[in-house]
Amino acid sequence: METLKAIFKRRSIRKFADKKITDKQIKTLLEAAMMSPTAVNAQEWEFLVIRDKKQLIEITKIHPHAQMLKQADAAIIVCGNTSKEILPGYWIGDCGACSQNILLAATDIGLGSVWLGVQPNKKRVQDIRKLFKLPKHIMPFNVIALGYPAEKKKPENRYDDKKAHYEKW
Amino acid sequence: METLKAIFKRRSIRKFADKKITDKQIKTLLEAAMMSPTAVNAQEWEFLVIRDKKQLIEITKIHPHAQMLKQADAAIIVCGNTSKEILPGYWIGDCGACSQNILLAATDIGLGSVWLGVQPNKKRVQDIRKLFKLPKHIMPFNVIALGYPAEKKKPENRYDDKKAHYEKW
Repeated sequence: METLKAIFKRRSIRKFADKKITDKQIKTLLEAAMMSPTAVNAQEWEFLVIRDKKQLIEITKIHPHAQMLKQADAAIIVCGNTSKEILPGYWIGDCGACSQNILLAATDIGLGSVWLGVQPNKKRVQDIRKLFKLPKHIMPFNVIALGYPAEKKKPENRYDDKKAHYEKW
Repeated sequence: METLKAIFKRRSIRKFADKKITDKQIKTLLEAAMMSPTAVNAQEWEFLVIRDKKQLIEITKIHPHAQMLKQADAAIIVCGNTSKEILPGYWIGDCGACSQNILLAATDIGLGSVWLGVQPNKKRVQDIRKLFKLPKHIMPFNVIALGYPAEKKKPENRYDDKKAHYEKW
């Protein structure tokens, strides 16, 4: 039942402590990301890990909700690689699934995280591509801010019976 | 580290045993789904649970990779509710994240699952909407087949160093 615990425990963390994430922890998050399912098993994701303070601050200049990156120890930019697609367009949902694996794995190893939306905001997509000189086939999906949490949030049960439909709409 | 175990253990299961999933288990999966993050916390998903055998078979007639639904005990159709969107278009990535929660929660409680792609395949979207008479603002994202597994698959480590980029592309 531990997975359910992490699923229910995970909250968006925007305040981070001044404590380093290890390279091994980053690798664990990437391993978790790459275990997510993809359409026709295309595994059409790529991951850009940013740990350099200057680069993290550059992101805050182009993303309006990324100020916590000034305190974050790392960010993972989840990208779709459209040159590896087998069925066009599935990379967006696939990147959503793999991002969730990163968030849950982070929760599991004691890290805080928050998902900062990029796709489908055209300006943000363009700005991130420009900042990191991404080739045309690499589409940024989101930016996940990471660090040891400096805030505590209680689990919040969002279950809503009205959103559960049985047999028919 | 238990969450990581489920993340690494999860495989797509397409053979199901003749054993009933309980209503409580279905509710657990929906609770897990609704704990996923959404853009601006819009929680713009809806879930259509199909357990009726006839209805499951109807899906196999319109989805080319859904034959395992003939043996599945249930299916959850994850949908985006575009009338609840705050930022347009984010529902697709958000449905990806919540689908992953369903797959991991299923793994955790001993169920097998497989994600059958619908969005962005226009014909499948149209056919599912027609079959279940979904209103215009309800967009089917995928169909998740569920049941007790009748096949065993070993964990498969998909980690690929070439997909991990550090500081720059």
